[in-house]
Amino acid sequence: MTCKKISLLQTARFLKRHDHFVILTHASPDGDTLGSAAALSMGLQKLGKRSYVLCPEAVPKKFDYFMKKLHNRAFKYKTVVAVDIADESLLGNLQDEFSGKIDLCIDHHISNKEYAENLYLDAKASATAECIFSLLKTMHVSLDDVMASALYTGISTDTGCFKYSNVTANTFDIAKKLFAYNIGAAEINRIMFDTKSKNRLELERLVLDTAEFHFDERCMLLSVTTEIQKKTKCSGTELEGVAAISRSVEGVLAGVTVKQTAEDTYKISLRTYEPLDAANICKRLGGGGHKAAAGCTVEGSLEEVKAQILASVKTELEETDAGAYTD
Amino acid sequence: MTCKKISLLQTARFLKRHDHFVILTHASPDGDTLGSAAALSMGLQKLGKRSYVLCPEAVPKKFDYFMKKLHNRAFKYKTVVAVDIADESLLGNLQDEFSGKIDLCIDHHISNKEYAENLYLDAKASATAECIFSLLKTMHVSLDDVMASALYTGISTDTGCFKYSNVTANTFDIAKKLFAYNIGAAEINRIMFDTKSKNRLELERLVLDTAEFHFDERCMLLSVTTEIQKKTKCSGTELEGVAAISRSVEGVLAGVTVKQTAEDTYKISLRTYEPLDAANICKRLGGGGHKAAAGCTVEGSLEEVKAQILASVKTELEETDAGAYTD
Repeated sequence: MTCKKISLLQTARFLKRHDHFVILTHASPDGDTLGSAAALSMGLQKLGKRSYVLCPEAVPKKFDYFMKKLHNRAFKYKTVVAVDIADESLLGNLQDEFSGKIDLCIDHHISNKEYAENLYLDAKASATAECIFSLLKTMHVSLDDVMASALYTGISTDTGCFKYSNVTANTFDIAKKLFAYNIGAAEINRIMFDTKSKNRLELERLVLDTAEFHFDERCMLLSVTTEIQKKTKCSGTELEGVAAISRSVEGVLAGVTVKQTAEDTYKISLRTYEPLDAANICKRLGGGGHKAAAGCTVEGSLEEVKAQILASVKTELEETDAGAYTD
Repeated sequence: MTCKKISLLQTARFLKRHDHFVILTHASPDGDTLGSAAALSMGLQKLGKRSYVLCPEAVPKKFDYFMKKLHNRAFKYKTVVAVDIADESLLGNLQDEFSGKIDLCIDHHISNKEYAENLYLDAKASATAECIFSLLKTMHVSLDDVMASALYTGISTDTGCFKYSNVTANTFDIAKKLFAYNIGAAEINRIMFDTKSKNRLELERLVLDTAEFHFDERCMLLSVTTEIQKKTKCSGTELEGVAAISRSVEGVLAGVTVKQTAEDTYKISLRTYEPLDAANICKRLGGGGHKAAAGCTVEGSLEEVKAQILASVKTELEETDAGAYTD
């Protein structure tokens, strides 16, 4: 299938021309895929269309404030729309039914695999919810409180609450317009950013106990053994967040997280600040990635694995002349 | 002295009429008092005035990116302006020189004590930096990158990066306009929100080790003994943040932080969610506060103090019928 890249206006026309929509979200659903799908589905219903949202997995309860407002009446879909899905493999258990059958994809990931028949991609948007906001405006659909809270959720979760470098003037402009509605933003933010599970808190406690500092405290190393993972019942996304902790201390240029995946196998996540290059450090151990975030998998005992990654960090510190860190 | 409340336009006229400004910030200087003072001082200089910023304490290095851009030439001030200072007592060691001599105060705290001769107060502003932005616009002062980054810092730090309930549509409107400049917002946010001292990380580790859960995990209790405080060299503001952790776990309605201040004296910080009322709980122990945040000081051993606050939390749980917490 050739993927046709279409404009905002063409996307609006496509939606107006079609009906009986199923709107798909990606697996491990986050605020952006869910908020975008919910707002789009409600918008289409406001235009008199039939539409429902389909998610490959159970939706976390914290999104109930807009997901529970969806009326998922069953009907046979005729038009398949994917939102915030960069790659069909992210459809999870919906792949069998929908792979190769996506009529329209609306996304903001520059890495989009162009798998859909029609693609509206705005890589400058901080979140797909920004695209949906513009689309609804183009279709002259007026928002309501629930739709606005769904769109706000998409934008705030994909930007770390307006904290990351993907935020633009347009992001703030949309947020301003969403604030014309009663969205309860502070409560949404509390749930999304300031609440964690007891298991996750316990994980942080145990992982902080493993903290080591090396090279005049320019490197911090955290260990997440399978023992800790089992004890705290944390996995997947909950473990990913640990890497952020490894780089959160003043003066640390390299944050290393060593996560045990099998008896003698460790997955290393590395986060660095300039002048260090995380990809360089991980390449020496057969991995790769970006300048500020990279990874590799190393075999051996925990002590052996730590020694290997620390040696590579040391080389990078020396080569980049970051030896003399000054506050 | 009678405090004259003046409008934005009157404030602009006052500043245009005067010269030789000293702009005062409050003690324990934060992003808003510093960002507001810096942007105002630079703005006055753009109008051909002489102005400098005076802070009662050393300015934390993390604010260097705009504070180091100030040209603090010494001259004898004639006009005293206080920014973001709700009460003269917050002038710290500048009180002796400036108490009763503030010509103009620009602030956003509803609790402002009206100590200045002229007061421009906008209690709807999320930060004093919002007031300064509007003031500079009214005076037709064009911003530059440094002024914009100072104002952005004031707004982002006082709103928890647009997370709190003090954010309004106008906050986003100003942020959008500041993004027309090269302010490096993501880097500012990293320094302000995602970086902590090694001591502070150690504090979190030791405090998490003290975590107790009570009443079907609806109450979390953290202890900050003097031993922990000494070991981590954390005091003042760095300790205050711990209370936020006590309320960060899913399902917890009452977060209690018991901080030792002397051999047998403990200061309790309480954070609650509805239907619990933190002020009710603390009043029983001789303290007070607001619905979501309150405090009290209790004498006794750590175990005795814990028993007292837990008993009061239990009473509140029973009286508000919050006994049956469901996820």
